[in-house]
Amino acid sequence: MNQLWITLLLLCPAVIYGGKVLVFPLDGSHWVNMKVIIEELHARGHQVTVVRSRDSWYIKETSPLYTSITLESDSGFGEDFAKTFVVQLLEIQRAGKSAWTRFKLEMQLAQMASALHVNTATMLEQLFENKDLIQSLKDAKYDLVLADPAIPGGVLLAHYLKLPLVFNVRWTSQGEGHFSIAPTPLSYVPLTGTVLSDKMNFLERVLNVIVFGFTEYQIAYYVLPYYVDLIDKYLGPDADFLSLFQAADIWLMRVDFVFEFPRPTMPNVVYMGGFQCKPAKPLPEHLEEFVQSSGEHGVIIMSLGTLIGELPHDLADEIAAAFAKLPQKVIWRYIGERPVTLGNNTLLVDWMPQNDLLGHPKTKLFVAHGGTNGVQEALYHGVPIVGLPLIFDQPDNLHRIEVRGAGKIVDIFSMTGDIFYQGIQDVLNEPSYRLNMQRLSRLHRDQPMKPLDTALFWIEFVMRHKGAAHLRTESYRLPWYSYHSVDVVLFLAGAVLLVLFTFVFFIRCLCTKICRSKVKRE
Amino acid sequence: MNQLWITLLLLCPAVIYGGKVLVFPLDGSHWVNMKVIIEELHARGHQVTVVRSRDSWYIKETSPLYTSITLESDSGFGEDFAKTFVVQLLEIQRAGKSAWTRFKLEMQLAQMASALHVNTATMLEQLFENKDLIQSLKDAKYDLVLADPAIPGGVLLAHYLKLPLVFNVRWTSQGEGHFSIAPTPLSYVPLTGTVLSDKMNFLERVLNVIVFGFTEYQIAYYVLPYYVDLIDKYLGPDADFLSLFQAADIWLMRVDFVFEFPRPTMPNVVYMGGFQCKPAKPLPEHLEEFVQSSGEHGVIIMSLGTLIGELPHDLADEIAAAFAKLPQKVIWRYIGERPVTLGNNTLLVDWMPQNDLLGHPKTKLFVAHGGTNGVQEALYHGVPIVGLPLIFDQPDNLHRIEVRGAGKIVDIFSMTGDIFYQGIQDVLNEPSYRLNMQRLSRLHRDQPMKPLDTALFWIEFVMRHKGAAHLRTESYRLPWYSYHSVDVVLFLAGAVLLVLFTFVFFIRCLCTKICRSKVKRE
Repeated sequence: MNQLWITLLLLCPAVIYGGKVLVFPLDGSHWVNMKVIIEELHARGHQVTVVRSRDSWYIKETSPLYTSITLESDSGFGEDFAKTFVVQLLEIQRAGKSAWTRFKLEMQLAQMASALHVNTATMLEQLFENKDLIQSLKDAKYDLVLADPAIPGGVLLAHYLKLPLVFNVRWTSQGEGHFSIAPTPLSYVPLTGTVLSDKMNFLERVLNVIVFGFTEYQIAYYVLPYYVDLIDKYLGPDADFLSLFQAADIWLMRVDFVFEFPRPTMPNVVYMGGFQCKPAKPLPEHLEEFVQSSGEHGVIIMSLGTLIGELPHDLADEIAAAFAKLPQKVIWRYIGERPVTLGNNTLLVDWMPQNDLLGHPKTKLFVAHGGTNGVQEALYHGVPIVGLPLIFDQPDNLHRIEVRGAGKIVDIFSMTGDIFYQGIQDVLNEPSYRLNMQRLSRLHRDQPMKPLDTALFWIEFVMRHKGAAHLRTESYRLPWYSYHSVDVVLFLAGAVLLVLFTFVFFIRCLCTKICRSKVKRE
Repeated sequence: MNQLWITLLLLCPAVIYGGKVLVFPLDGSHWVNMKVIIEELHARGHQVTVVRSRDSWYIKETSPLYTSITLESDSGFGEDFAKTFVVQLLEIQRAGKSAWTRFKLEMQLAQMASALHVNTATMLEQLFENKDLIQSLKDAKYDLVLADPAIPGGVLLAHYLKLPLVFNVRWTSQGEGHFSIAPTPLSYVPLTGTVLSDKMNFLERVLNVIVFGFTEYQIAYYVLPYYVDLIDKYLGPDADFLSLFQAADIWLMRVDFVFEFPRPTMPNVVYMGGFQCKPAKPLPEHLEEFVQSSGEHGVIIMSLGTLIGELPHDLADEIAAAFAKLPQKVIWRYIGERPVTLGNNTLLVDWMPQNDLLGHPKTKLFVAHGGTNGVQEALYHGVPIVGLPLIFDQPDNLHRIEVRGAGKIVDIFSMTGDIFYQGIQDVLNEPSYRLNMQRLSRLHRDQPMKPLDTALFWIEFVMRHKGAAHLRTESYRLPWYSYHSVDVVLFLAGAVLLVLFTFVFFIRCLCTKICRSKVKRE
């Protein structure tokens, strides 16, 4: 019977197993990623419950995909927060790029983000204190918690309910996801924000180590303190913040190694970079008409992401003027005031079907801010990039594209229209950019399974086996000096020294004796 | 066109791509593993060429699966060598188990194995000097070299021919395969031969570190020296032994994490543990009859592997007597003299269809020496094990089964018939052994793809893309002090000290000045 069941599972990996999944997402762009997985869970017949806050922004209360649990508190992570955050960061970015400025910028970021952690902690406390809600969560007998570890809500809830835990992850509160579980030699694993590659010179390696120390400091002072009491009160004194993350069963990581630099990983990390990518659908009629009107020159598309719909007037004018000089047609997602220099080859849109445009054969170039999703979509469709990175991981994402010769970064904070124009010309006219991006696209698409199917396989694996403990190391339970074998090395060094000293001592005793007996004889 | 090709590839991963593969195997049981892959390569329409020595043992000159290239020299790795090696090791094993004995044993092993390296080096030199052969190898335009890195033949040849390199690997000349490329914290990654798990106490961790040092010593004195001149002469002064291994494109690793303890890994390691396992075929009539005659008690099967067909008389008698007391039927692969105590419930056979017997529903128990293949087959079929480990990795393999509660180890060197009988009774009567092994079996079988298909996918991936450089770190090019950031830490410590000293110096100068001016005023 068992064998039959296994055989069936092997034969049809998409077998419907009506599981129950409790999702604790992060709002905003992270939710867009989570929703892709929820849609697929729903399509496969699983029941999904989503935990959201009263002031949720992207996460709707009602949906055909899931039932929701709305907590009676605010996450504080709404459009206002995000926009203020971004605007403030952009202001500082524009002001200068000295080490000191970057440091201040990071501190400001950490302080603002800490407001989110204060809210998350309050939200969790209210949740744990709501006995009725907790009882109903226990009664629901979920198979697993699917969480975004950028905030620790799902992590704590999963441990409280003693449920298996799967992450949909790129970043955690501790920075880049891998850092929490995989050994990370700082000599060839660049930290996010450093805009370094896996090949660093001495000074770059020094920078990487400094940034690492700084990240540790940030976690210790801007993240951890908000959860210590909460963990102590509700999860017991044996639990600690980091090890709750490390105990996750599966880490569905939103990168792959066509994009990311090769680095050590762990058996419970599953790569699903590009899981949201799909073949292009036909464009709406008016867009298709516009695209076709570009003739042999093709189309350029530009978007700086959901949050950056507009730019300072002068900058927008410079960009529009550069576009106007091109023989290509341009589709620009821009919601600000119409730039005065706008050419009639440029179409401004409030929203565009980005994936369908990237997959259109006429599309020659993507002018992008470097959000992970956009970069992965460009990679999937093989469209080279001119990158205008702004904040967060955008410079790092685009750097990965640039070092592989599949795009070019232009500094939006110092660029003129001419520099921007030149950047576009370079990527359009030098065939290597397109060829390299197409090579990356071929590598990315050549996988044993589609990334989304892989992700779902492992979520369902956790349902079937109540976890994936065999893929997870428990080495994190060791104290640091044992993990790094410091105690063993000291012990062995001590033992060697002891033997050496004993030996020397005996030799000296012997010598003294011989000398004395000689003296006596004399 | 390109897109269509990719879509086709994604739709049918088993697409026939007529590649050319040059295989450099190791003889003996390793060849059995390599042959599984060669059969599959052949079935998928690839051309396979196998490099063998004049005195090849398992590797036949003619085969419908491959064409062979026979080198005009001896590997020295034949049945005689293997049997002498094993017998000698068993003698030492039986003699005692003190640390010193183990050390001597290991040294003897290393010295005997070094004869193989001398021969491999000679073989390679003759190969590189044979200009016609080398030219024909170049002309053949192979897509990749598939090598067993337990001897470095294929590694050196691949680099000489500048071809992509794929390993079929469990061990390398440097020990366990992972050690060459993945960070390996000795605090939770047990070395082979230590019979430790991923959870070690302090003294076990000390042992693990000592064994690591010892392994490094073995490599430096018993492996490396034989190849230094050869590499220098034929591959240039920039190449070095270890980095030639590290540059392999894909490591097809013959374990999985149902069997192996979780540990750090790298993106270019592909796990294919159990790739040789297949559903059971019907047994030959006489065996089926014998098996059915066991009734509800079921069958026990015993094999100590190809090399250990017989045992000392007294030991064989003890085992046979223990079997005779059982209500089960026993099938024992034994080619020695018929034990006098043999019961009529026990069938001695020269050879047995092990996989088909393990997959038979009547099979209750496997008495095994713990070779990787046998253990993986038992795991695949969910049959618990009584382990009688002898040499090599057998104690470690069985230890992995034992700590998961799916089998029990009995020390063959000190056991009596009663102890053996008790071991069998324990595993037969305590249901947890069978239940645990069946749980492992379910976990092992629940993979997105069959391990052999995964292996072939990645071999064909390397063909399609002329390597897999994007999955491979090149951090091994860094000197050790850079890899471990020792230089950076020293630099930063120096910088901090300099700032500190400068500060103290100025404070002292200031103090001195103030004091002097005070003194003057007074």
